[in-house]
Amino acid sequence: MPEYPTALGASSRETITLLGHDLAGDVMGKVGFGELAFWLATQRRPTSGETRVFEAVLAALADHGFTPTAIVTRLTYLSAPDSVQGALAAGLLGGGSRFLGVTEDCGRFLHAHLPADLPTDDAGWDAVALEVVRAQREAQRFVPGLGHHVHKDGDPRTPRLFAIAAEEGLYGPHLSLFAAIGRVHPQVLGKTLPLNGAGVCGAALADLGLPLELLRGFALLARTAGLIGQLAEELRHPVGNDIFLSVDLNNRSVDPDPY
Amino acid sequence: MPEYPTALGASSRETITLLGHDLAGDVMGKVGFGELAFWLATQRRPTSGETRVFEAVLAALADHGFTPTAIVTRLTYLSAPDSVQGALAAGLLGGGSRFLGVTEDCGRFLHAHLPADLPTDDAGWDAVALEVVRAQREAQRFVPGLGHHVHKDGDPRTPRLFAIAAEEGLYGPHLSLFAAIGRVHPQVLGKTLPLNGAGVCGAALADLGLPLELLRGFALLARTAGLIGQLAEELRHPVGNDIFLSVDLNNRSVDPDPY
Amino acid sequence: MPEYPTALGASSRETITLLGHDLAGDVMGKVGFGELAFWLATQRRPTSGETRVFEAVLAALADHGFTPTAIVTRLTYLSAPDSVQGALAAGLLGGGSRFLGVTEDCGRFLHAHLPADLPTDDAGWDAVALEVVRAQREAQRFVPGLGHHVHKDGDPRTPRLFAIAAEEGLYGPHLSLFAAIGRVHPQVLGKTLPLNGAGVCGAALADLGLPLELLRGFALLARTAGLIGQLAEELRHPVGNDIFLSVDLNNRSVDPDPY
Amino acid sequence: MPEYPTALGASSRETITLLGHDLAGDVMGKVGFGELAFWLATQRRPTSGETRVFEAVLAALADHGFTPTAIVTRLTYLSAPDSVQGALAAGLLGGGSRFLGVTEDCGRFLHAHLPADLPTDDAGWDAVALEVVRAQREAQRFVPGLGHHVHKDGDPRTPRLFAIAAEEGLYGPHLSLFAAIGRVHPQVLGKTLPLNGAGVCGAALADLGLPLELLRGFALLARTAGLIGQLAEELRHPVGNDIFLSVDLNNRSVDPDPY
Repeated sequence: MPEYPTALGASSRETITLLGHDLAGDVMGKVGFGELAFWLATQRRPTSGETRVFEAVLAALADHGFTPTAIVTRLTYLSAPDSVQGALAAGLLGGGSRFLGVTEDCGRFLHAHLPADLPTDDAGWDAVALEVVRAQREAQRFVPGLGHHVHKDGDPRTPRLFAIAAEEGLYGPHLSLFAAIGRVHPQVLGKTLPLNGAGVCGAALADLGLPLELLRGFALLARTAGLIGQLAEELRHPVGNDIFLSVDLNNRSVDPDPY
Repeated sequence: MPEYPTALGASSRETITLLGHDLAGDVMGKVGFGELAFWLATQRRPTSGETRVFEAVLAALADHGFTPTAIVTRLTYLSAPDSVQGALAAGLLGGGSRFLGVTEDCGRFLHAHLPADLPTDDAGWDAVALEVVRAQREAQRFVPGLGHHVHKDGDPRTPRLFAIAAEEGLYGPHLSLFAAIGRVHPQVLGKTLPLNGAGVCGAALADLGLPLELLRGFALLARTAGLIGQLAEELRHPVGNDIFLSVDLNNRSVDPDPY
Repeated sequence: MPEYPTALGASSRETITLLGHDLAGDVMGKVGFGELAFWLATQRRPTSGETRVFEAVLAALADHGFTPTAIVTRLTYLSAPDSVQGALAAGLLGGGSRFLGVTEDCGRFLHAHLPADLPTDDAGWDAVALEVVRAQREAQRFVPGLGHHVHKDGDPRTPRLFAIAAEEGLYGPHLSLFAAIGRVHPQVLGKTLPLNGAGVCGAALADLGLPLELLRGFALLARTAGLIGQLAEELRHPVGNDIFLSVDLNNRSVDPDPY
Repeated sequence: MPEYPTALGASSRETITLLGHDLAGDVMGKVGFGELAFWLATQRRPTSGETRVFEAVLAALADHGFTPTAIVTRLTYLSAPDSVQGALAAGLLGGGSRFLGVTEDCGRFLHAHLPADLPTDDAGWDAVALEVVRAQREAQRFVPGLGHHVHKDGDPRTPRLFAIAAEEGLYGPHLSLFAAIGRVHPQVLGKTLPLNGAGVCGAALADLGLPLELLRGFALLARTAGLIGQLAEELRHPVGNDIFLSVDLNNRSVDPDPY
């Protein structure tokens, strides 16, 4: 008979524990939600500084207006208002490689390119970054986290997250390498691109020591809060049907194009 | 040409705003994640007391061990490790009428049974509750939030959430009616059932003035954090394959049973 | 140790069976996909007439152009092209009470209103239908399957499915009651509404003896084929990004509206 | 104003067309469901031989008993019986890289390794296959479609699908290369592995000229029918709660293991 060990939630007739602590007495009313999410993911209670950086990341990623994920949640609710869980799940399914994936891709990329001996000053990081950007260019690959289709002159979230991490003493190697990429890439690429917000979030999460395989998961957690906001607004000021009609009324029948 | 108004995320080349505030300057590093989720759902910034009650609810609902939703997330990750978003979405899809739905059902039920003139003391609430429980019994319907298959002598989350709400001055009519149901139901039903944690969470969320249609959504937000915890544990101490095999190896072929 | 009985797929080192038959020898190459889907759902192999009616229903429901479900699948693929399963699942999540639910609602409604003694002629069915429509009107409820926002003068699928069912000797009580509703409702409602295609599909599926709780499931099966078609077209002639931009570029920032 | 061209479903007040054909008159009652799914995906009506091979593949992939996807659908239905669409979508989300992905991986792999000049006899294919298997072994990569954890002496679906394709004159280069891999791999790997059913399905779908990016989609279509079968059986002979309890009752609380 297999056994299934877990350190997460457990309960007996009298007690409920979470991560080895009494849920009612030690967690409820004492642990904020961001702090709890970090704790659940790492089985280690974060410091207040770690929680602040983590929650800054979640704020940065929670909602970006009418993204595909937001539109999907609103249209799914329009079509199946009986299932709030379905509307949220459908929205989250857009959190893949393209829109929300940059956070994870950037964190993993930076981690994979940290040198064994970490530099101790900007010049050292610049040298590492130069090599990294050159190698990407030679392989004709993008550097994750570099560039933004709207904030072409700079993503306002980026300097802010660098500053918060520095204030909390959590400006580690991933953020250092990312900052250096921001400084040196113009001399390789011949143009200046902004370090985008999704990328700096990945760097900050990696510096917090969160599991790299789940960086996308934190973006999805942030987005869950955003999608609830989208649903709440849709309930009171619906636009889903207008979006549907704006597509459907502009359809144009064409002949089949056999594959 | 339709327009799509929204008060949520918006951005221009230079700025990003969220709920009318500068995201980088006024939200990141200053607003906790629970606070932000409340704000997004109501377009109103909560007080610190409201945030504390809200986060206590999220803590109460985040993870309950090997629930169907947790098992589903682990099995989906086993089967499709390429898609963290799919594993989380699959888990959330279990957040329907039976397991996570009690929170919403209870909040809606209490709201629907609040009298026009709210009582001002326990005796008054008891009278209302007595009528409510009697009507449910006559209609052969359960009272949402009453009873628990494990915590038969009392769910430890319930008194704790009542206490936290009272401390913050947020013990409103929904919690009052729920408490009164706890006091009076034995004289109608002939047995004493516990007020369960999912139910008291619904009452507390309703007293916070959150949209009733989305109470299930907050349970899902809490659970998203819990499911990330499940995935993190699965990554390091996998049990998904053992769960799968424990079912598959105990399958028994039977003859078709024509419908 | 629990055991899990099943009559569906089973395999040993040498064999694979499905519904008690040898999969390779007796199913592959011999059983069509619609036939197999019916068989899986009922554990009973359908006749060729049943298969024809069933497949006609699936054809009727497979794709209706730029529905919310189709838009959702395209947008999810745009956002997360790494996960075809996510794009399909997101689209199916719109198969709820409003858009795809009519099929199930209509089948269940007709079944719930079949009299104990089934009429044997149109006049008899008309009398039953008259009572049913009157009762719905008095309760201020719609009759499922009645009315269509586009095909106001008649949905072309409806007479065709009646005819196919009649040809195959499968025009049973659900279709009979539905047809009678089509004849008598004007004298109760004071206007003539079309019997819509989703509704007649529900009636036909119910007459096939399929499980009422899963009628929505067959609509989802049909739609899965349609959504694969949508994805295939999106791959070659993408419109997802245009849809996204048509919404995002027409967003309008408004002030928060506190709830 | 953008326009959205499509050759799929379209409707006017009087008519409904699908792929340029009159849905009611030309499709319903005349086109089987497998045939329609092929047509929707390729915008080309398949021959009867193509339909037969395609439906044989769908039969091979429809249900394999208590797979993770089947367990997930049953558990999600247990937890949220209000949403059949959620239970099906959750199951499909397991159709990723590991369990259902082999079909797509194998089809793509074979396609990527077809030589410019196709061999005309087995000896020619064996030479190609030898090179392919050697290159995979040197790169320490598996050959998709090779090996099965249960059917170690041969997957009964494989010879059957080869035979059906041959009967229909649809045994093309992908199947030829796959068969050759089956013949030559022992001399490279030093052991004989079976060509598995998921792999041969990918080869056959590729020989049918279906879009490689969507091969996984056809496995998901097949599985949708299977999951409806699982739900139908769960409704009448439920095991979901036993599965849940078999996990929950065998949980074992352990100390947190900080990451």
